[in-house]
Amino acid sequence: MNQKQRQNLERLLNPRHLAIIGGRDAEAVAKECERIGFTGQIWPVNPKREKIGGFKCFASVEDLPEAPDAVYLAIPREAAISTVKRLAEMGASGVVCYTAGFSEIGAEGTELEKSLVSASGDLALVGPNCYGVINYIDKVALWPFPHGGASPGYGAAIITQSGMLSSDLTMSQRSLPFAYMISVGNQSVLRLEDFIDVLCTKPEVKAIGLHIEGVKDISRFSEVALKALEAGVPIVALKTGSSEIGSELTVSHTASLSGSDDLFQALFDRLGIIRVSHPVQLLETLKYLCVAGIPKGKRLVGLTCSGGGATLLADHAEKIGLEFTRPSKKTAKRLTRLLHYTATVSNPLDYTTPIWGIPERVLPV
Amino acid sequence: MNQKQRQNLERLLNPRHLAIIGGRDAEAVAKECERIGFTGQIWPVNPKREKIGGFKCFASVEDLPEAPDAVYLAIPREAAISTVKRLAEMGASGVVCYTAGFSEIGAEGTELEKSLVSASGDLALVGPNCYGVINYIDKVALWPFPHGGASPGYGAAIITQSGMLSSDLTMSQRSLPFAYMISVGNQSVLRLEDFIDVLCTKPEVKAIGLHIEGVKDISRFSEVALKALEAGVPIVALKTGSSEIGSELTVSHTASLSGSDDLFQALFDRLGIIRVSHPVQLLETLKYLCVAGIPKGKRLVGLTCSGGGATLLADHAEKIGLEFTRPSKKTAKRLTRLLHYTATVSNPLDYTTPIWGIPERVLPV
Repeated sequence: MNQKQRQNLERLLNPRHLAIIGGRDAEAVAKECERIGFTGQIWPVNPKREKIGGFKCFASVEDLPEAPDAVYLAIPREAAISTVKRLAEMGASGVVCYTAGFSEIGAEGTELEKSLVSASGDLALVGPNCYGVINYIDKVALWPFPHGGASPGYGAAIITQSGMLSSDLTMSQRSLPFAYMISVGNQSVLRLEDFIDVLCTKPEVKAIGLHIEGVKDISRFSEVALKALEAGVPIVALKTGSSEIGSELTVSHTASLSGSDDLFQALFDRLGIIRVSHPVQLLETLKYLCVAGIPKGKRLVGLTCSGGGATLLADHAEKIGLEFTRPSKKTAKRLTRLLHYTATVSNPLDYTTPIWGIPERVLPV
Repeated sequence: MNQKQRQNLERLLNPRHLAIIGGRDAEAVAKECERIGFTGQIWPVNPKREKIGGFKCFASVEDLPEAPDAVYLAIPREAAISTVKRLAEMGASGVVCYTAGFSEIGAEGTELEKSLVSASGDLALVGPNCYGVINYIDKVALWPFPHGGASPGYGAAIITQSGMLSSDLTMSQRSLPFAYMISVGNQSVLRLEDFIDVLCTKPEVKAIGLHIEGVKDISRFSEVALKALEAGVPIVALKTGSSEIGSELTVSHTASLSGSDDLFQALFDRLGIIRVSHPVQLLETLKYLCVAGIPKGKRLVGLTCSGGGATLLADHAEKIGLEFTRPSKKTAKRLTRLLHYTATVSNPLDYTTPIWGIPERVLPV
């Protein structure tokens, strides 16, 4: 990512105007922009249709009022390449290339992807073979399917190599506050490293989540991961492709070499990256970091109205090296006064059903 | 469990009449019975109230029309013990003792629990310190809080030592078909072994889920676990209390000695019990067994519309020793014809978004 591309990426993330190029998929993007509350201009480009998503169509990119800050490209491959070239020449800022069928399908696609890259010039090009970008802070959804997720004005930035997985993550009902969702696809121009670089300095980004199939430039990845660490923005990574079949799939999915899992583990340890092994862990770990912040130590307190739940907490904490410290004598005395006689003072604490749902009795505990 | 108690337990599970003894909690049970569609008679017993849940109250158990098949007992400890004695003498069948404050709170409670047990005679006594019994097949909810869960006429029988956990399990939205939910509490008379014994022979029970803090009689547990295995009803166990704090908590929760985790693992292996480590795994494993049946081997097929998801599947399968076998040449050829050119034939298969949501193109795959 050169300096010009960095500026273009900033414009793409929060565009004043968005050209949507294509048919049905472009229409879906217009709808998602409307749903999220995008306030910029939307310019559909389609020579065969009058209107898309209620907006008047332009016949070609040359007819647009000015060079667009953002373009959503959902047309066949050859046309996509020539359009990218014209967009670069007219000074557009960024392009999401939703079109697939490039390096992920083999030799023929790899040649086409090379053409796409050289056509892109200084454009901030996301993809190809990606879903795009959602900016929950400034209300921008360059996204081809219904998206979920909400933001209280801050949250996690998630950068993934799987469009459908990122879609699923936005749809989860786990109350993760979102800041950005980026689906990077084949990373032909902009790579996940570039997004870490740009997003980790934004004050609304409290943590960064990564779904990684392969890293193209380990040294740059290390550099930006340390930049995020220094900025106090923790990174949580879901690295896939560790199995034999899985590593073959990452090649056909996003043309990624998944690499040795041991080396990735060593890299993550060195860079202070938190590794998770499941999408739910990714969401819950990010939520913890966004809502509660980075924990200062290993000691914790558990409050539950379930004896079974308290034991599950204690078992798991011991397994992963967290400590439920015992209540002091003074604390134990105070708790005994507050609790029903069937409860036992402990940490984690089961405060028991007699006070369950009675705020004036639970709150003092 | 003697022969008489076994008969009484069968009546308790599907009672013609239910006496609810207590105030607010008894009212909650009446409401849950109404919600599930209980068709038997409901007889509240309360000397101070006219009606509970719309039913006329009886002043004492001696005033009931006849000895009840089931009793829900939610009154203070001393009264509970004397009432159990009178119920046993009048020939009632089963009692759920919701009342807590027995052996789980220490020496004083242990003495009271001994009195409760000797008062119970041949009663099928569940608890004390338990939520009770839900029979989803015959529509019976001897349950003191709102319950969830549905049944297509068959499903899992779950037997737990944590009332709140069992409540949470019924509330999950994971579409597990339920047959029975049993919260056994302190297991002073009826133990989880007894419920395995009785439930594993019912044709509507496709699998049994256990949440275990401690087993009181290992030899009987082994006997009934093998009985279930022979009946083709697999058992899935969530055993808790393996940690230092966790094992202390099981004592104060249900007066259970959680025992050595290694010994439990060996026991489970020997008895063909599937062990899980998380409530979600318990639900999902039971669902698989209830819906798809017991798998015949280790080979599987994965179909997804997510390249990221396909890789996650492949990685996890390799980790746990399952096999995604490669498609044969013939199958690969047929799939290539059915799929979009951006898809790659593999197992697990990402059939890709171009055919996503289009039944006439996805179904042949």
